Amino acid sequence: MVSPPVLAMRTPRAPPPRLALLLLLLLLGGAHGLFPEEPPPLSVAPRDYLSHYPVFVGSGPGRLTPAEGAEDLNIQRVLRVNRTLFIGDRDNLYRVELEPPTSTELRYQRLPVPPEADLALQPQRHQCVSDEGQAGGRVSKLCKGVAPAGRVHPLCVRFQRLQPPVRQLQYTLQPLGDNISGMARCPYDPKHANVALFSGMLFTATVTDFLAIDAVIYRSLGDRPTLRTVKHDSKWFKEPYFVHAVEWGSHIYFFFREIAMEFNYLEKVVVSRVARVCKNDVGGSPRVLEKQWTSFLKARLNCSVPGDSHFYFNVMQAVTGVVSLGGRPIVLAIFSTPSNSIPGSAVCAFDMTQVAAVFEGRFREQKSPESIWTPVPEDQVPRPRPGCCAAPGMQYNASSAFPDEILNFVKTHPLMDEAVPSLGHAPWIVRTLTRHQLTRVAVDVGAGPWGNQTVVFLGSEAGTILKFLVWPNASVLGTSGPSVFLEEFETYRPDRCGRPGGSATGQRLLGLELDVASGGLLAAFPHCVVRVPVARCQQYSGCMKNCIGSQDPYCGWAPDGSCIFLSPGTRATFEQDVSGASTSGLGDCTGKWGNGRPGDPPLGSSCPSQPMSRWGARTSFGRSGGLTPG
Amino acid sequence: MVSPPVLAMRTPRAPPPRLALLLLLLLLGGAHGLFPEEPPPLSVAPRDYLSHYPVFVGSGPGRLTPAEGAEDLNIQRVLRVNRTLFIGDRDNLYRVELEPPTSTELRYQRLPVPPEADLALQPQRHQCVSDEGQAGGRVSKLCKGVAPAGRVHPLCVRFQRLQPPVRQLQYTLQPLGDNISGMARCPYDPKHANVALFSGMLFTATVTDFLAIDAVIYRSLGDRPTLRTVKHDSKWFKEPYFVHAVEWGSHIYFFFREIAMEFNYLEKVVVSRVARVCKNDVGGSPRVLEKQWTSFLKARLNCSVPGDSHFYFNVMQAVTGVVSLGGRPIVLAIFSTPSNSIPGSAVCAFDMTQVAAVFEGRFREQKSPESIWTPVPEDQVPRPRPGCCAAPGMQYNASSAFPDEILNFVKTHPLMDEAVPSLGHAPWIVRTLTRHQLTRVAVDVGAGPWGNQTVVFLGSEAGTILKFLVWPNASVLGTSGPSVFLEEFETYRPDRCGRPGGSATGQRLLGLELDVASGGLLAAFPHCVVRVPVARCQQYSGCMKNCIGSQDPYCGWAPDGSCIFLSPGTRATFEQDVSGASTSGLGDCTGKWGNGRPGDPPLGSSCPSQPMSRWGARTSFGRSGGLTPG
Repeated sequence: MVSPPVLAMRTPRAPPPRLALLLLLLLLGGAHGLFPEEPPPLSVAPRDYLSHYPVFVGSGPGRLTPAEGAEDLNIQRVLRVNRTLFIGDRDNLYRVELEPPTSTELRYQRLPVPPEADLALQPQRHQCVSDEGQAGGRVSKLCKGVAPAGRVHPLCVRFQRLQPPVRQLQYTLQPLGDNISGMARCPYDPKHANVALFSGMLFTATVTDFLAIDAVIYRSLGDRPTLRTVKHDSKWFKEPYFVHAVEWGSHIYFFFREIAMEFNYLEKVVVSRVARVCKNDVGGSPRVLEKQWTSFLKARLNCSVPGDSHFYFNVMQAVTGVVSLGGRPIVLAIFSTPSNSIPGSAVCAFDMTQVAAVFEGRFREQKSPESIWTPVPEDQVPRPRPGCCAAPGMQYNASSAFPDEILNFVKTHPLMDEAVPSLGHAPWIVRTLTRHQLTRVAVDVGAGPWGNQTVVFLGSEAGTILKFLVWPNASVLGTSGPSVFLEEFETYRPDRCGRPGGSATGQRLLGLELDVASGGLLAAFPHCVVRVPVARCQQYSGCMKNCIGSQDPYCGWAPDGSCIFLSPGTRATFEQDVSGASTSGLGDCTGKWGNGRPGDPPLGSSCPSQPMSRWGARTSFGRSGGLTPG
Repeated sequence: MVSPPVLAMRTPRAPPPRLALLLLLLLLGGAHGLFPEEPPPLSVAPRDYLSHYPVFVGSGPGRLTPAEGAEDLNIQRVLRVNRTLFIGDRDNLYRVELEPPTSTELRYQRLPVPPEADLALQPQRHQCVSDEGQAGGRVSKLCKGVAPAGRVHPLCVRFQRLQPPVRQLQYTLQPLGDNISGMARCPYDPKHANVALFSGMLFTATVTDFLAIDAVIYRSLGDRPTLRTVKHDSKWFKEPYFVHAVEWGSHIYFFFREIAMEFNYLEKVVVSRVARVCKNDVGGSPRVLEKQWTSFLKARLNCSVPGDSHFYFNVMQAVTGVVSLGGRPIVLAIFSTPSNSIPGSAVCAFDMTQVAAVFEGRFREQKSPESIWTPVPEDQVPRPRPGCCAAPGMQYNASSAFPDEILNFVKTHPLMDEAVPSLGHAPWIVRTLTRHQLTRVAVDVGAGPWGNQTVVFLGSEAGTILKFLVWPNASVLGTSGPSVFLEEFETYRPDRCGRPGGSATGQRLLGLELDVASGGLLAAFPHCVVRVPVARCQQYSGCMKNCIGSQDPYCGWAPDGSCIFLSPGTRATFEQDVSGASTSGLGDCTGKWGNGRPGDPPLGSSCPSQPMSRWGARTSFGRSGGLTPG
């Protein structure tokens, strides 16, 4: 064994991922019928830890000056594309570079927006941002929606990425070509659904009209025909709210919630769904589904606590991208209960192969207006299977060649009979005691010194972050499900993010982005973007027991008696595994740990105390390439 | 104005009840769509207050001696009939007199139980108790169920009430006649449903078999024919659990929960119901419904938070008797969520006239197995109306004379289309943050010096009591609904009620009875019955502001500077109304009040402190005719 630079890690040896998943599924099944318990966090960060970290406020010192016309931010939307964060505020579009990780300054670029004459008419302007450069291309398309009170359609601006001059690190973006209509690509109101993804063409999910009545999944800006979903057909959509889109295989998958037509006799029940379309769809024939999707199918997502009657978390709030967990392609999604229900949130995991399998299953239909919805018998489903992707070399080389029977079936049967089960058939995390609902989720599937641990960050409406270790070894799985509630910390900075005399609406978490490379979390509020480290290891320094007891995969115990942040670059050097050692033999510090509750002192409080500055940005965050306080 | 013996009351002048109800309904409507907030209690009683109050443990000192064969109690069920509390334990039946209110001793009688030979066979014995003497009669019928492991049917014993000798205050009960079968009157297992009510005959709602498959509403022990509900018909009952029965008008109403057949395609959804039967039903014709109810109808009870889709509290736990509130005949019921849902409880009020109106409304039916349930068109309902009470002088003078068409309709259409709305169309009280679910409810509609205030006591599974003032003046109605959370206090006494080395099951609240005359609450646990006062006024003594700030209708401020308990006898003497005076001018004590949270000191803590003994049994409870500590 290589001589270890660090003596001890709190991570017991991980079992093979497949085995762990199996154990997890078995154990979850045993908790059938009872609502899960909710242990408190192992640690709560002191409120003032935040003052050590940078905040982006647009017109802050050293950034934009008043002479540049800057005003307080009014952020509508943020998007991270690789190591670039795009911040769309009401009147400006900012680009903040997270690269290089050793940077000590927030590098930003304010991108030009079209000088519209109607900006004076109390404009409601907002952003829709998509990335076309994921595969190394040089052009980013960025839409800047402009919807003034006069109800002019939103506009999109295209930007060209210019390679940086020799001595400059960062590229710049410049407008490219004419502005194009933002209709069906951006909503009129940033509160409305706004999902976009580039994959050869621009796939968007939004509403096309000011009143948000015409919801659409739309494909445009490319060689193939522009396609949309069927208009004003409640079987396709009933008051949907689009949450996210991912590309997987030959399909684009859209995550959304809507009113369930299959329960419409039970009042307006909102359910969560996943829909998919073939990337190569070219629409139907001139008779059926022309210029409309021939491959649109949707299915319910089941995030529920099992029992005689499942308790569903129906209101999807956010979804991660597809990550690999135990060899499976998985998305994590956070759900809540409706506003008139007992407040609660849950995180469920969905395997994309199981999502795809549901789309190969039975269809659901309502035979008459007074019937319940029932599965369509297999012998009544035409062939080739409705919703499949046509391609050259197959029976039909394009979707426009499908017989009308297929196209008519797809048009009238967009709903699958089965719901997509969540992995483990129960939520991985449930929280009902938090004051604010949890609306954001970010995941790191490469945490820990071996890069094989999974940490989930949940963000509340008010910016509180809850950090969970999921997928632990089976031996530590308790009745609370497959998660350990590691830490709770705040991200909202009233001193920087609140408008003077501002209202409570300034403390509304608009976005949560994880930048794994720098070990940073980016929390966007209406008037600021705050960057905080993913862990506060230094508070456990001087006490090995507390460092290990924190169970934090981002923290490791160093020979010099400090509990240090394991930035991605340093992780590979940790090879010591202390799974055999019980924590009771790990140190002589006597402070309590492992059962901290909100209000308790931080875990390391009984160990020699560390000044705040020692576990602030310079140590744990600075090492990982974070930014110095602004 | 009469010279007041007490200077100030915390009760502002009450508006006319009808007006208050109207305002309440209007204000509740305004909170549409959001789950209600849950303010903390104004006061939390210190845990040790309990040591001042009497506990009935069966074999306690001064009660039963070991020589009498007493053993630790194993209480299955308690029932209060006027001022008598019947305590059915596994092996004994106790009668505890709450009268006279000035008594300082728990008077009890241990009633004889039949010497069954099979008692040695690990008997599962339990009680069903009903009262036939409500109208002043002299005979009480008490059933003593005996269901040993050999599955012998339960038995009922009848007791005769003997008038007391001249110098003795209490009557005694003696067995009367032969034991009778307890089948359909008592369940085999005390965990099963067990509801009974005497009104001329014995009306029971229980299960008739050991496996609790055959649920029944049964009438027996009288001049009219024995009647039951249709056996094994899931339209009549699907796994019901009976909670309570009340007599109102010409009907007996049964409150229960069951699996909703109308939602059976949605898994096993439990809903709460009310059913009713005519007291004078004599069953159907020899062809249809012979020896079965011809008047059985049932309807859903709607206790929900309004919204696009109502959030239902579906699992009824307990119901009060019919009380008069604002001139309306009302029952209060406490509901919870299912065990696999986010835990929560709600109290809803139902107006019996609205209950009756639903039974005059449309019927609901399922036309085919794949249909949703829809209302029966009025022209398809036969006349006279199915479910009505036949009587001499009407078209049919007995239910057995109904045409088969009517009887067949009743047999196949027991479910009403509409649900009974709760008063205000929302819960009056909602609690989701309590650790244990709330399962018991008691109400005093004659609280306060004018006897016009309503206090609701809720009991958790673990014996915690939550006390609410409901129906306050409209001017203090907040967003939290029409209730003020006055106080939280414990009733479980681990030192007296726990078995040596006992398990946690000893702390399970089996019953909660309010004895208004003595100002006492009786909380029954498996091994004890605890009696505590309804208020702890003396803790506010010395501080008028705190006394009034407690908003407790049972407390009043006395000229000698004490906050005293207003026992029923003293209430009429309070005539001073301080509704015009703001509490800020009422005293110079500076302690915080009105915003106490669990863990905070009691409200009077900043006033001159009172020794616990001064506000214990002797002062607040003793005055009201309570019992001295045992």
